[in-house]
Amino acid sequence: MTDFESALHAWRMVLGVSNVINAEAGLQEIERATFSTEQHVLAVIRPADTREVQECLRIAAKYGVPLYPVSTGKNWGYGSRVPVETDSVVLDLGRLNRIVDFDEELAYVTVEPGVTFQQLYEYLQARGSNLMMSVTGSTPYSSVLANVLERGLGHGSYGNRVEYACHFEVVLPGGELINTGFGRYRDARTKNVSRWGLGPALDGLFSQSNLGIVTRMTVWLRPAPKYMQVCKFLLGDDTGLPDLMQALQKLKLEELVNSPISLFNDYKLLAMQQRFPGEEVGENYSLLPGVLDKIKQSKSIARWNGMLTLYASSKKHGLVLQELVVEAMQGLVEVMLFQDETTSWIYEGRTGRLVIEKPSASRGFKKSPLYGVPFEEDLATLYWRKQESVKPEQGPDFNPDKDGCGLIWCHEQVPFTGKDVAEAVRIIDETIRGWNFEPVTSLRCMSGRSVNVLAAIIFDRAVAGEDRQARKCHTELVQKLVEAGYFPSRLDITTMKQLSAGDKNYVKLIKTLKTALDPQMTLAPGRYDFQQDWPE
Amino acid sequence: MTDFESALHAWRMVLGVSNVINAEAGLQEIERATFSTEQHVLAVIRPADTREVQECLRIAAKYGVPLYPVSTGKNWGYGSRVPVETDSVVLDLGRLNRIVDFDEELAYVTVEPGVTFQQLYEYLQARGSNLMMSVTGSTPYSSVLANVLERGLGHGSYGNRVEYACHFEVVLPGGELINTGFGRYRDARTKNVSRWGLGPALDGLFSQSNLGIVTRMTVWLRPAPKYMQVCKFLLGDDTGLPDLMQALQKLKLEELVNSPISLFNDYKLLAMQQRFPGEEVGENYSLLPGVLDKIKQSKSIARWNGMLTLYASSKKHGLVLQELVVEAMQGLVEVMLFQDETTSWIYEGRTGRLVIEKPSASRGFKKSPLYGVPFEEDLATLYWRKQESVKPEQGPDFNPDKDGCGLIWCHEQVPFTGKDVAEAVRIIDETIRGWNFEPVTSLRCMSGRSVNVLAAIIFDRAVAGEDRQARKCHTELVQKLVEAGYFPSRLDITTMKQLSAGDKNYVKLIKTLKTALDPQMTLAPGRYDFQQDWPE
Repeated sequence: MTDFESALHAWRMVLGVSNVINAEAGLQEIERATFSTEQHVLAVIRPADTREVQECLRIAAKYGVPLYPVSTGKNWGYGSRVPVETDSVVLDLGRLNRIVDFDEELAYVTVEPGVTFQQLYEYLQARGSNLMMSVTGSTPYSSVLANVLERGLGHGSYGNRVEYACHFEVVLPGGELINTGFGRYRDARTKNVSRWGLGPALDGLFSQSNLGIVTRMTVWLRPAPKYMQVCKFLLGDDTGLPDLMQALQKLKLEELVNSPISLFNDYKLLAMQQRFPGEEVGENYSLLPGVLDKIKQSKSIARWNGMLTLYASSKKHGLVLQELVVEAMQGLVEVMLFQDETTSWIYEGRTGRLVIEKPSASRGFKKSPLYGVPFEEDLATLYWRKQESVKPEQGPDFNPDKDGCGLIWCHEQVPFTGKDVAEAVRIIDETIRGWNFEPVTSLRCMSGRSVNVLAAIIFDRAVAGEDRQARKCHTELVQKLVEAGYFPSRLDITTMKQLSAGDKNYVKLIKTLKTALDPQMTLAPGRYDFQQDWPE
Repeated sequence: MTDFESALHAWRMVLGVSNVINAEAGLQEIERATFSTEQHVLAVIRPADTREVQECLRIAAKYGVPLYPVSTGKNWGYGSRVPVETDSVVLDLGRLNRIVDFDEELAYVTVEPGVTFQQLYEYLQARGSNLMMSVTGSTPYSSVLANVLERGLGHGSYGNRVEYACHFEVVLPGGELINTGFGRYRDARTKNVSRWGLGPALDGLFSQSNLGIVTRMTVWLRPAPKYMQVCKFLLGDDTGLPDLMQALQKLKLEELVNSPISLFNDYKLLAMQQRFPGEEVGENYSLLPGVLDKIKQSKSIARWNGMLTLYASSKKHGLVLQELVVEAMQGLVEVMLFQDETTSWIYEGRTGRLVIEKPSASRGFKKSPLYGVPFEEDLATLYWRKQESVKPEQGPDFNPDKDGCGLIWCHEQVPFTGKDVAEAVRIIDETIRGWNFEPVTSLRCMSGRSVNVLAAIIFDRAVAGEDRQARKCHTELVQKLVEAGYFPSRLDITTMKQLSAGDKNYVKLIKTLKTALDPQMTLAPGRYDFQQDWPE
């Protein structure tokens, strides 16, 4: 037997035959992402619990077979379930889908990797909980835990998820189990309520990393606000963007708006509502001048479509916040629309004058991601460049990998200044248009100091050549942004192997850590370890 | 030459003779803490910059001489400048005292270890900055950077300091220099505004740790609030504490109060105002029944003396917050006093009724730690048990080590429930009283999920036997709290060598990391590495 065959045999002994899959049919599907990949998957193994994960890792280390963990495998636009290195075995954590602890008073929940946003939502609903989770913009059937580890962004005031989680249970590459924070003290009552514990804080080591598999994590929940308002605001062109960003930065630094402030560009909003209007394109498959403007006008879409949420403790409190936000944005936007459960207010942007206040019939107001309710509206963007005839499945079967949707995320972090954000937007627009794709861009203001700028390169994998064009576009975009000082804060599996790690001592340290914890290099080699730059 | 002599020689070559001190006279002082220690210091070396720190570490590793870094050395109650292990050389980072970067718009400053709170305050004042730092309750002449690394607590909404810092420049034990976060990319414009960077997050490894020396750090600053109110509230006895804590937890979880809510017990407030009334003590050096009550009454000190700050964007905003806070605490406290720059409001606690609203003559309102102004009032507590004749020096010369002040901190983290906080307080009171000291306790509510409970064991090192009694008291207190599930979140150098690390796999991991980064074990051995539990 080869080492791989021995490993397969050992895994079958531990997991049972049905949980070790190496039939070719099943694996072609798992080798598909929303962009071109060449990695070959040797097998998929499906442990049922933490103990089995430990065994899987011990066997992988013993036989030197690389294991690549996925939780629910919906990492679309970053690589889906495809391993960074070819000839890996995918470790599917989907069967670890238990909610193992919950505390209404201290507002947390402890989850395994397979627990989805939808599952957590239903769990909270079933208990009549007053707590809400930070909802994802991706599918409700993705993993809560994995999104924290990948430093994904959510809605609501816990949107910067990685700062609202603690007590990781981690299986190290050799199979040993550790708990971070106070979790290492079995009887500590603060396990799930403190991010720091005592001594070196290790959580950071296991996010965007290949140093261990997190099999449990405590995620913090926020009480539903006693009162909420949503504010939408519109900006007609890029000229006013720098000044508006400056004003928004002040709102964040002042702690007046605790939840993220988001701005979506015209294409982003359009792609949520319709497919690419293929019949109206000109040469090079790009929209004819004027076509975009005409569609935007018909749908009341502006160049920048902003949204922020005011969580308040009473209506009176919310109205004061409204007043302060109006004051902050006055003169910088075209229009501001505020809405609570019963009323809407429209302000003229230039003067900050209230023009309409009227009862609003938003019966579904509390069925919003801002109240912790999962939603799927964002997902339509994945089909932007697909033919109308390709209809996405709904719910858990939604599968852009299978449907040939093309998506590569370019997720950058930019200092929260008007100048920096405008410059990043300019580079994105110019580069993506240059490759005849549409810049589908979101500005997510998570803190008062930096903005997460997310550009989606969306294409149709069924069109010959688009895979190649899209990757070239992405590579050029990352390079141009990096040259301007704007670095990615999350990577797709292809860029992981291309981007420089930066300083050579940092690479040496990463190598030292990886080698110390995973001498066989069997856990997700290539994942955020910058091996391409390793010394020797 | 012995290895130590060779090392001394090499350090002299790099630092100059005057920066390598091994005269006995100077070292006795550095061997003194606010509690009994037996560690012997071999020498003190004083590098001038990062490059020299690198050289110092290389020499230490070469000759196997343990180095123990201190920044300004004011870690009172935790061990001052005394190394965890005897026969160490103290690496004094005080000469690295430059403010190397500052950005008013993005609200950060980059500091070296020797930069003090006072220095940073003066720096901001000199520039007419609108930014304020989170002030320490310890001396203004302590290190900003070291307080972050030790996870110290501050005032204002950035009080949980370690969550408001990024971009560490770190010298590893072998002398290599790394930068955390985006700092490893020399040209990244987000270096100082993002805590996560790309790939594994390493900052946590270097706080409460001996894995590297942080020689630079970016610390975030908050814009001064446009409007502020301080709220003081009083609680007469322990009966109402659980209900009050529940109400305060909700205020924090609701994000209505972003800054810490603090409650100080009677002894804490008393110790800030006067010395222990020695002439009125009974047997066992404890206060006679009734004496404490009499003094408290004369000074308007309650059993629990609470304080919170409302940072607002306008007066109207602040008044709404006041209303909500009154509503939340109504029926749970005796009295609430709110104050802004011009007015004070007094509410009856039981009914929440406003009884007095009057102009207040607080001309010094903005000269408050809540506006980022350093203060020294807390420091008087260190002299609580000293004779009146021992007068502390003022300013940078304030020196409780020299004056024989006795202090051991017991810094615990407790879940933010009424039951847990009350139980921790009960254990603290019972234990500390049992050893004839006074429980000097602060409850610092930094988040909505856990409370930092700080009990100070204060004594007079000049009184024979007190060193021993205080240590026994501390050991018993930590043990009892741990048995109840309340673990320390910061340790003094003696407890570092006694407390169990918890789980054995965790210890193995810490050993693996330490061994990989510091094979010679020369950097601060014993510091938060739980060597007492290491395998083999």
